[in-house]
Amino acid sequence: MIVSSALIENAVNEFAKLPGIGKKTALRLVLHLLKQETPQVEQFGEVITRMRRQIKFCKQCHNVSDDDVCNICASHTRNQKLVCVVESIRDVIAIENTQQFNGAYHVLGGIISPIDGIGPDQLNIHTLVERVQQHGVEEVIMAVSPTIEGDTTIYYLSKKLKDLPVKVTTIARGIAFGGELEYADEMTLARSLTNRLPLENYLQNK
Amino acid sequence: MIVSSALIENAVNEFAKLPGIGKKTALRLVLHLLKQETPQVEQFGEVITRMRRQIKFCKQCHNVSDDDVCNICASHTRNQKLVCVVESIRDVIAIENTQQFNGAYHVLGGIISPIDGIGPDQLNIHTLVERVQQHGVEEVIMAVSPTIEGDTTIYYLSKKLKDLPVKVTTIARGIAFGGELEYADEMTLARSLTNRLPLENYLQNK
Ligand SMILES: [Zn+2]
Ligand SMILES: [Zn+2]
Repeated sequence: MIVSSALIENAVNEFAKLPGIGKKTALRLVLHLLKQETPQVEQFGEVITRMRRQIKFCKQCHNVSDDDVCNICASHTRNQKLVCVVESIRDVIAIENTQQFNGAYHVLGGIISPIDGIGPDQLNIHTLVERVQQHGVEEVIMAVSPTIEGDTTIYYLSKKLKDLPVKVTTIARGIAFGGELEYADEMTLARSLTNRLPLENYLQNK
Repeated sequence: MIVSSALIENAVNEFAKLPGIGKKTALRLVLHLLKQETPQVEQFGEVITRMRRQIKFCKQCHNVSDDDVCNICASHTRNQKLVCVVESIRDVIAIENTQQFNGAYHVLGGIISPIDGIGPDQLNIHTLVERVQQHGVEEVIMAVSPTIEGDTTIYYLSKKLKDLPVKVTTIARGIAFGGELEYADEMTLARSLTNRLPLENYLQNK
């Protein structure tokens, strides 16, 4: 793309690095920002930079957090003995947006996938086991996408937790097999949490 | 959207202010930036802020510029006596990307549109007339979108220029009536410049 300004060209290139943003869209965004007042554009830059600089990951659940412990783990009105295990931060956001779940989370940070070279050691599994042991967790809900990798992860976790006094459930099937949890609509997601099953039922149906 | 981090929520809100970016897309972009190293995100913020702070508008043609005069107006290899009149910076970029035009530009900064309250005084028309008078411009090409507002603008400009020793042409029809110039493909745009018509022909066909 030929633009008679290096300032604009650089800004277009930065936007075009973002996923799903091509050069034409990037140009449209840059020209939009050009029409805004300078303080507004400065705020845009600052808010995004500050986000990256200051973001933390919760020591307990590995969710994104503004503090050492996230506001879900720190909340006294939430059931800290009910822990929903998810793959990523996006899944936490998806479930939170159903406004139907009042427990806490544990973000694995991925899913067991030998093809991608991701084994149990790369995931936040050790801290989950510790948390169950030390904090009297009563129920762990496996809210992992119903894919082959998700199932592998569920089997692995169930082995790790099987000797602990904790009930292990999985979210109800309602999400199509092979579907990504984060793309499920809020109703499906909320219902699959409400209708969660003991893990044995899930494993029997395999 | 419920996000358990004000830092992320603010960043999502900033992205969602951009045209065509909804909350879900904004979240996707923010989570992408979260995965990048801090210096890369800082660079993103800085490049965009710098662009807005330092951008200038060319004194001669009103195009965006890194200096007082843009590099198109300052170029000795371009025909400064051939001036292509466009509505916006985006049109300059669209025509430049055809790599077929070797003249200069004049950015009106809009189009005459009584409904939107935009009259000739809000546009860079005065500086065009002065430029034609003072710099010996030989030809002015009206490369305005073929809409009703575009035609109104062409009529107005042709009256302003009619007593000056300058040839006035319009880009050849090739762009569908009512179509926006900036969305035309490069081939159509390049051809419509090459096959430009004297303004009389255009006005006769109305
Ligand atoms: Zn937490
Ligand atoms: Zn210029």
